[in-house]
Amino acid sequence: MSNREIKIGVAGLGTVGSGVINLLKKNEKEIRKKSGFDIKIQCVSSKNKNKKRNCDISNLNFYSDPLEMIENEDIDILVELIGGETEAKDLVLKSLKKNIHVVTANKALIALHGNELSKSIDDSRCDLYYEASVAGAVPIIRVIKESLNANDINWVAGIINGTTNYILTEMLKSKKDFDLVLKEAQDLGYAEADPTFDVGGIDAAHKLTILSSLCFGIPLDFNSIYIEGIEDIELDDLNYAKELGYSIKHLAIGRKNNNGIELRVHACLIPEKRLLANVDGVRNAVVVSSDAAGPTLYYGAGAGSLATASSVTSDIIDVSRKILSASNNSVPFLSYQNNQLKTKKILDIGNITSRYYLRIRVSNKPGVLADITKIFGKKSISIESILQKEDLINDENVPIVLVTHEVLEKNIVDALKDIENLEVVKGKIIKIRIEEL
Amino acid sequence: MSNREIKIGVAGLGTVGSGVINLLKKNEKEIRKKSGFDIKIQCVSSKNKNKKRNCDISNLNFYSDPLEMIENEDIDILVELIGGETEAKDLVLKSLKKNIHVVTANKALIALHGNELSKSIDDSRCDLYYEASVAGAVPIIRVIKESLNANDINWVAGIINGTTNYILTEMLKSKKDFDLVLKEAQDLGYAEADPTFDVGGIDAAHKLTILSSLCFGIPLDFNSIYIEGIEDIELDDLNYAKELGYSIKHLAIGRKNNNGIELRVHACLIPEKRLLANVDGVRNAVVVSSDAAGPTLYYGAGAGSLATASSVTSDIIDVSRKILSASNNSVPFLSYQNNQLKTKKILDIGNITSRYYLRIRVSNKPGVLADITKIFGKKSISIESILQKEDLINDENVPIVLVTHEVLEKNIVDALKDIENLEVVKGKIIKIRIEEL
Repeated sequence: MSNREIKIGVAGLGTVGSGVINLLKKNEKEIRKKSGFDIKIQCVSSKNKNKKRNCDISNLNFYSDPLEMIENEDIDILVELIGGETEAKDLVLKSLKKNIHVVTANKALIALHGNELSKSIDDSRCDLYYEASVAGAVPIIRVIKESLNANDINWVAGIINGTTNYILTEMLKSKKDFDLVLKEAQDLGYAEADPTFDVGGIDAAHKLTILSSLCFGIPLDFNSIYIEGIEDIELDDLNYAKELGYSIKHLAIGRKNNNGIELRVHACLIPEKRLLANVDGVRNAVVVSSDAAGPTLYYGAGAGSLATASSVTSDIIDVSRKILSASNNSVPFLSYQNNQLKTKKILDIGNITSRYYLRIRVSNKPGVLADITKIFGKKSISIESILQKEDLINDENVPIVLVTHEVLEKNIVDALKDIENLEVVKGKIIKIRIEEL
Repeated sequence: MSNREIKIGVAGLGTVGSGVINLLKKNEKEIRKKSGFDIKIQCVSSKNKNKKRNCDISNLNFYSDPLEMIENEDIDILVELIGGETEAKDLVLKSLKKNIHVVTANKALIALHGNELSKSIDDSRCDLYYEASVAGAVPIIRVIKESLNANDINWVAGIINGTTNYILTEMLKSKKDFDLVLKEAQDLGYAEADPTFDVGGIDAAHKLTILSSLCFGIPLDFNSIYIEGIEDIELDDLNYAKELGYSIKHLAIGRKNNNGIELRVHACLIPEKRLLANVDGVRNAVVVSSDAAGPTLYYGAGAGSLATASSVTSDIIDVSRKILSASNNSVPFLSYQNNQLKTKKILDIGNITSRYYLRIRVSNKPGVLADITKIFGKKSISIESILQKEDLINDENVPIVLVTHEVLEKNIVDALKDIENLEVVKGKIIKIRIEEL
């Protein structure tokens, strides 16, 4: 085993960057015992040297400009943890050009610019690893790329945004409304000041972009993903779902079907005995269903300083091992060989089928249910169960909760338009897909 | 990317062997799209050529003796799927001596002879991979060796024997006794004709031997594992546990504590909201808790022809990639560098602490509970809850179900001896540890 030392530079000293520095120090011996080599942090970069932070950088070469850092320092691996897209992309491209391998936790970078980065990886014969970009400590990227590589993958589904899962868990647990729980989550640091990226589903869609490329051998394509957030889910929905034997979770789903590939991010009802239904709080979990292995599930912390650093550091060790072996036969960047990535048909959301949970607010008058079911009948939508709830606050308007049998999404959308036009129906109908998984 | 072809020989054409042959054929293109190379099955061996089997071997060189196969054929990788210990060990040692890499699914081989094989791996500079030896399709070996390698692992706990988990699940579901469900499991092929290996906990202990070495950096040591099976669990226990808010699962547990390492295989009560409590039937799941990543969980099919072949084939692809890169810097056989494996103190089962579920059958007389609690008091064992059940069949003897607070195992064992000596106590007391996980 070589005694060479691998020299790394860490760009970005926020939550993840300081986690990596702390972890490499804390477990220095442990890592050497397993890898047989040393990983030396040679230099770091951050905008402000004197900012108070959770790690000790006093003995490290400091740069306020990461581009200057890779220009001046002789490093084997750049660890890109500055986040964002533009600056990070420039830094990564320039590193690869200088034959510096890259490890990153940046999901937006990979999801939005990975196709372009892929070419630079090939040209430079360097590696670009990104385990921490999806599901924090959960090693879902390596699992798909290496452990399930003999499989044809049928679908992938996961709870991959901790903020939304925390909010849905906490609403039900503490019987509070969305707005209040969101505010508490912001105070606790579980949600950003501008929460739209998380609660609107964008973050989960970035991650699904990556997972779907790895699973299905398609180029990264963020724009083809159908996205809904959790803003419309009310505490009532969580309670009614529970009464029906389900949990409501915000899922990212990629699935091959006979006509193409479904890529969608939205809230779902999941039967409560399923493992995914019991993944609570800020935890993440991903299920991969493939032809040989069948369904397998991977669960753990979706974020956090050391948890994310665990994945970043496993990538650093993996790339180091390859550098020390002078290997030129890495696992491909997007799981499939570059010339094997094929654009495939991504289905419009209207062309998927699902069962649906519907909550309709109606005037408390006789004949209302008949009016509604008549419209469903016309569109050949059949109803599996009905909960008619009393509303203690407002007995003029009451909610009707319906569960449909499997139906084409565009048919349900058409029916709901007609139903929303009925005079007895008040406000927007809440529609949540049901996933058996 | 190299266009070279990797030549493999498959020894053993049972469930797993035929799965590997079928999977390599079924997903030949899929595998090539990801790996960039071809895997060619050059030859196979099995005792009886003409036995009816689930795979087509008509175009493959056939041997009835695997030793003759590795002698005559020029292969890169031997896939050892004959099972058992003696013959398999001889075959693997001779393969490594001939500089043939080895992939195996044989847990007994690794658990009982891995320390010896490790030396041959070093001498030959060949790889010996064994992902399929633990938890079937679940990639727990690669996860521990590669994804969690920056972590100091605190504990590992898993449902890693599908037969016992199927029996416990089915007893509760169909309200049948152990013996009846075992017989049905045998008829369905989920349990062997001689089930002691599975229901007695030996198989799980083999797997825990491997996991504990990888997690804690200790040499493989099957004999230090404390083993209990599930033979004493009755349907009543499953029902009472459910009433108390728990599931009963047969677990393998390895845990560092201040005094040493606990290695134990036995049934446990697990709070019903935990993911492990919801792992049912023949499925396996492993939780690894480590300092940086925190608890992460891995779940999937624990056995089955294609599911196990998925893991075997991922190993074949990984070893192939290394062969084609002429890499001499593999992930170590037992996760830690060989010279870093250290014998550590394994705790006697008496020195662990736990909460306990106890079921005591007593005469239906006044004062019985006082007699029992007096003995617990003397040993400083405090009781958390008591269920006193009526017995509809036999009202002379009734069960008392107790849950204790945390206590040292040897104290509870002493107390139970005294209690079993009371005249009012009938038969053996059932004692099951409670794990919070």
